[in-house]
Amino acid sequence: MARPDGRTPLQLRPVTIECGVVPHAEGSCLITQGRTKVLVTASAEQKIPAFLRETGEGWITAEYGMLPRATHERTAREAAKGKQAGRTLEIQRLIGRALRGVVDRSCFPESTVTLDCDVLVADAGTRCASVTGGWVALALALARLKKDGNLRGRPLREAAAGISVGVVRGEVLLDLDYAEDSTADVDLNVVGTSGGRFVEVQGTAEREPFDEKQLRQMLAIARRGLRRLWAAQRRALAGRVPEEWIPG
Amino acid sequence: MARPDGRTPLQLRPVTIECGVVPHAEGSCLITQGRTKVLVTASAEQKIPAFLRETGEGWITAEYGMLPRATHERTAREAAKGKQAGRTLEIQRLIGRALRGVVDRSCFPESTVTLDCDVLVADAGTRCASVTGGWVALALALARLKKDGNLRGRPLREAAAGISVGVVRGEVLLDLDYAEDSTADVDLNVVGTSGGRFVEVQGTAEREPFDEKQLRQMLAIARRGLRRLWAAQRRALAGRVPEEWIPG
Amino acid sequence: MARPDGRTPLQLRPVTIECGVVPHAEGSCLITQGRTKVLVTASAEQKIPAFLRETGEGWITAEYGMLPRATHERTAREAAKGKQAGRTLEIQRLIGRALRGVVDRSCFPESTVTLDCDVLVADAGTRCASVTGGWVALALALARLKKDGNLRGRPLREAAAGISVGVVRGEVLLDLDYAEDSTADVDLNVVGTSGGRFVEVQGTAEREPFDEKQLRQMLAIARRGLRRLWAAQRRALAGRVPEEWIPG
Amino acid sequence: MARPDGRTPLQLRPVTIECGVVPHAEGSCLITQGRTKVLVTASAEQKIPAFLRETGEGWITAEYGMLPRATHERTAREAAKGKQAGRTLEIQRLIGRALRGVVDRSCFPESTVTLDCDVLVADAGTRCASVTGGWVALALALARLKKDGNLRGRPLREAAAGISVGVVRGEVLLDLDYAEDSTADVDLNVVGTSGGRFVEVQGTAEREPFDEKQLRQMLAIARRGLRRLWAAQRRALAGRVPEEWIPG
Amino acid sequence: MARPDGRTPLQLRPVTIECGVVPHAEGSCLITQGRTKVLVTASAEQKIPAFLRETGEGWITAEYGMLPRATHERTAREAAKGKQAGRTLEIQRLIGRALRGVVDRSCFPESTVTLDCDVLVADAGTRCASVTGGWVALALALARLKKDGNLRGRPLREAAAGISVGVVRGEVLLDLDYAEDSTADVDLNVVGTSGGRFVEVQGTAEREPFDEKQLRQMLAIARRGLRRLWAAQRRALAGRVPEEWIPG
Amino acid sequence: MARPDGRTPLQLRPVTIECGVVPHAEGSCLITQGRTKVLVTASAEQKIPAFLRETGEGWITAEYGMLPRATHERTAREAAKGKQAGRTLEIQRLIGRALRGVVDRSCFPESTVTLDCDVLVADAGTRCASVTGGWVALALALARLKKDGNLRGRPLREAAAGISVGVVRGEVLLDLDYAEDSTADVDLNVVGTSGGRFVEVQGTAEREPFDEKQLRQMLAIARRGLRRLWAAQRRALAGRVPEEWIPG
Repeated sequence: MARPDGRTPLQLRPVTIECGVVPHAEGSCLITQGRTKVLVTASAEQKIPAFLRETGEGWITAEYGMLPRATHERTAREAAKGKQAGRTLEIQRLIGRALRGVVDRSCFPESTVTLDCDVLVADAGTRCASVTGGWVALALALARLKKDGNLRGRPLREAAAGISVGVVRGEVLLDLDYAEDSTADVDLNVVGTSGGRFVEVQGTAEREPFDEKQLRQMLAIARRGLRRLWAAQRRALAGRVPEEWIPG
Repeated sequence: MARPDGRTPLQLRPVTIECGVVPHAEGSCLITQGRTKVLVTASAEQKIPAFLRETGEGWITAEYGMLPRATHERTAREAAKGKQAGRTLEIQRLIGRALRGVVDRSCFPESTVTLDCDVLVADAGTRCASVTGGWVALALALARLKKDGNLRGRPLREAAAGISVGVVRGEVLLDLDYAEDSTADVDLNVVGTSGGRFVEVQGTAEREPFDEKQLRQMLAIARRGLRRLWAAQRRALAGRVPEEWIPG
Repeated sequence: MARPDGRTPLQLRPVTIECGVVPHAEGSCLITQGRTKVLVTASAEQKIPAFLRETGEGWITAEYGMLPRATHERTAREAAKGKQAGRTLEIQRLIGRALRGVVDRSCFPESTVTLDCDVLVADAGTRCASVTGGWVALALALARLKKDGNLRGRPLREAAAGISVGVVRGEVLLDLDYAEDSTADVDLNVVGTSGGRFVEVQGTAEREPFDEKQLRQMLAIARRGLRRLWAAQRRALAGRVPEEWIPG
Repeated sequence: MARPDGRTPLQLRPVTIECGVVPHAEGSCLITQGRTKVLVTASAEQKIPAFLRETGEGWITAEYGMLPRATHERTAREAAKGKQAGRTLEIQRLIGRALRGVVDRSCFPESTVTLDCDVLVADAGTRCASVTGGWVALALALARLKKDGNLRGRPLREAAAGISVGVVRGEVLLDLDYAEDSTADVDLNVVGTSGGRFVEVQGTAEREPFDEKQLRQMLAIARRGLRRLWAAQRRALAGRVPEEWIPG
Repeated sequence: MARPDGRTPLQLRPVTIECGVVPHAEGSCLITQGRTKVLVTASAEQKIPAFLRETGEGWITAEYGMLPRATHERTAREAAKGKQAGRTLEIQRLIGRALRGVVDRSCFPESTVTLDCDVLVADAGTRCASVTGGWVALALALARLKKDGNLRGRPLREAAAGISVGVVRGEVLLDLDYAEDSTADVDLNVVGTSGGRFVEVQGTAEREPFDEKQLRQMLAIARRGLRRLWAAQRRALAGRVPEEWIPG
Repeated sequence: MARPDGRTPLQLRPVTIECGVVPHAEGSCLITQGRTKVLVTASAEQKIPAFLRETGEGWITAEYGMLPRATHERTAREAAKGKQAGRTLEIQRLIGRALRGVVDRSCFPESTVTLDCDVLVADAGTRCASVTGGWVALALALARLKKDGNLRGRPLREAAAGISVGVVRGEVLLDLDYAEDSTADVDLNVVGTSGGRFVEVQGTAEREPFDEKQLRQMLAIARRGLRRLWAAQRRALAGRVPEEWIPG
């Protein structure tokens, strides 16, 4: 069965990560995965939330948004509606958790890094691209903190990237685009680390429950994609952050 | 290592499901799991959302709330704050998806069933208890729709129940309570069906990434708990819904 | 003229008050009056609002809510709508004022007690039941403050309870249920004290103005109901709070 | 004991009601009671709320607001805060109920009259002045509806006016000003009709519970004030509405 | 071409400014311009916004509102809708900027003056009337600050007033009323100073772009109106503020 | 006096307009002016607001937003705060008015075009860049409507572009960047047409009132910049919209 853009089932869409696109931000990148485009900025501020005072740990948090016409049909602007959708809040909670899962926050006890992930064009996979690009922007911001003398030690234990896998008409496919995603029976989003472990595994039966065998198959395929993303992250950061922060 | 309430690692907390506690509702139950208590009502209304018009399918949706003093410290009332927290929206989206995953909505093309899951006492596991109790309240409401002539066929393909598993200080534990949950390294919520498949698998590394072996171990343990919950659901519904709706 | 549930005109619905139903709360009770059920928690916190600083007085406040399906038809969740209805705010202001009216707040100058009154089932009389149950939960929380050394003296000058009286088709009835309340010409809510005085008297002509003779007659009947409620409060608290706090 | 402005205990503040102050409105008046000033407009629109469709009854509703500097200290603007205070909602519900209590709404089955009561200067008694002025503005708007052929019959069964009575340092006083109101032990707001009956009786023990004898005494004094207000309403409306609408 | 109220093209509507109408406010006035009526209060408070700390400058800000029935058709109350319209925010930002433009804020380094401009009757020109009346209320409040010893020096560099000019069916008209404003091709609002300079010039082509010649013609006419308004401001303030504050 | 980036006083920053950057939108462009970058999409939908029904005219409206880190310091996300700032609303009202001013809306009586102007990087001049880019995106969307048979005639009467001029330390400068803008005495934003007329002229004395001579000087300089912008718009649209829509 052919995929809309001619890919093989286990083929990732083309991925590029362009660093430094927003000059004001401590870290920033534009990640493009197929037609999906997410602009990520990382803002480091000398403040921490109240619940972390005197714990010796800094904070990492994320916000997510979609420009109104990132989607096929125009979506109402959340700022105009006066509230963020449940989907938005769910995604930004995921991004924050995923990145905190690979960072040693005791390296920057006085700082908060906020990742803003804004989708310029949406063609599925935006939450995963936000995690992948978010890790790059975070690394850049942490490098800047280090340069400014506000960070000690090695803050990044591993790299983190996100990928989706789905079951479409019985077939397991890597990195779904919108046309595939909207007809998938099962949708699995995985945040994996460069060390081969998982930070988040979120599988949902959109149409039909799945069994453990299918889950294992999807996880295996996810790992293939994650290795490719990890390579793209390495390339984007080369020469921009301390070399020892980038796990081999 | 002893658990706070003396349970063995694979032991579920005592579960009771009391049906019919809210006389006005088409379906209702109070589910108690250890100290956690969730009141679930299912309201059937003759209306469907716009996007389902002329599709021949009904709708199932869920809302979730916690009474302010369900928690150890009083939590501000969401109605007074003027918005629902991200956690609340994330949970109610999960409950709705999980229940839609086991229902044939073409059996009630004109109706919406809304599950209201309100936590009276929170001691961890409230989202899972909401799914488990939600399926019972849903079954009761569907039985009422059938009695009123507004439902045809067999709407429940399988039962659905939710359970949490965690890794605490290296040990895999079933059905965490609050003390355990707040120190867990990994937290896995699983919604499983009476047919042995999954509707939702949500694993999160709260402190330390996990590998696939740990994931498999946690899923195996989750299945043990799910069988027990399925038995509790059967007992609660016996004689209250058509016998053929309750899978053996 | 027969009442829907067979009561005589001056007969109260059966009332039960179950203490300690929410383990986390400093005080809690479930009050049942006929089919109406309200869960009340009293949360004591070591803080006071800004306007009471340096006055030597603590604070008592109340919040009120109805679960969406407490009512015959499902009511939209206030947290989802993003604001509390005028009726909700009016009722919670009444509960707070009523309880403050019988308490010596100089006994706990550093503390705020928040009463959360959440209606699980509504069959009329929910604001009055919230006051009656609220006084019980408050007494329990104050006893807890005393035990923890955060209260001195005798904080409860009198007991307070709430009762409704109405004129339905020309007849004065005690403790209306929903069917009666929705057809009443006049609706009177009274908060009375164990000493025979009033804290709140709120009479409203829903359909037809009332004269002073009718008002006196309603007040006399209200007092009958209040004595019964006061007895129920005494029974509920026996052995749970210092004996001298419970006026003979 | 002298009152701040030299009045005797049972003396009303000077009251004037100026009609027609807002040219666009179907009815309007500026009511001045001592220093308190409330601008009331009545807007008649050809629409009714959904719950009145096919009942043959029109609707009357009220909204209340205070200009930010109506008060001694500037109060934050509710529009800027994004929500109306509980006090505001409580008052506007009272005004609407009070006026509906004396009107035959079957005379204008297709219309809604909205009373906007905006306080320009607040020196206590604003809710009562809103009712008193509201009845005048309502009468003017109904006369306009009649003139336009959108009203039949006699819509005003009785006049309605509001007055406050309080117990201050043991003495019963009519028509409290701000200095008196802020130190009152008991505060009673009464909406009475020209026929000598009550539409609303709201007594609150601000500091000390009150007994039935005090309540009777306060009601007797309220009636004195209400007669004076009714005379002021008659004078204001003379020649402006059909003579038979103004009860002798 | 005749104007609706018989004015010549360059004739201002009758303007009156009544000072001191709100007794609680440090400064207040009611400005009437034709049928338009705006009540302005100036509240002086001993506080400054965070961004001015340690700058040695005080603050001036404005809020604007319209009573619901100030308009021909009733407008929904912004407090009830839960947010201020874009038009409201745009106008109040203009008023604040305009007044700050003629004030030496280093004369009252610890104070904020808030101008509340509430439209009682709207017949076009409300933003300009708010500026004109706002300057008067501001002067009164600053005089009060001086009297209380909280102001030094001469705070008012010049007077400021606002006026509208429009092009209606090809003719340039001064001070449009609602009927004219709603059919204007071009609408120009000018805030000018008693020294003959501009603080704000806002010209908008409502229907047809305008050229520079038209702009010059409109500005010349605006200046005529501004001189008249400045005279009305002088008259209103005579004897109420230090004489040297009122530029000749 | 040297400008921060070495420009002469009357020199525009480099401007590029890249069309078609958002594949889903009927029209889109990325406009870059110096460091300022605004992504504009134009969404055409087959609907019109209620007030235009049966008028034979379509609608054009605009929304404006800034990504949180478009600014030097991170700005809180408006969607998270739950409301749009006054500045945002003021700007989007300006953009909509400006574009409506040069369009014949009777050419697309059934359609609404919504311009979404989202600032990716802010270095002053964002509202002007939004107008300039907005006109390009609008032209593209109208060309699409025409291609789809939903537009007749020639909808664009003239081109519209926006430019800022300011007085900084006594010198008139074209196209201020952030460093200049934040110290300007006067700030003038002009929306001009390709025919040499004005749609919007908004001059504000940020520090010091300005006289008519200064205004004329600023307008003359603005016209220089507008000609350059008009040339950039022509280049961007060449071959993309009907040639006769682009005025010579």
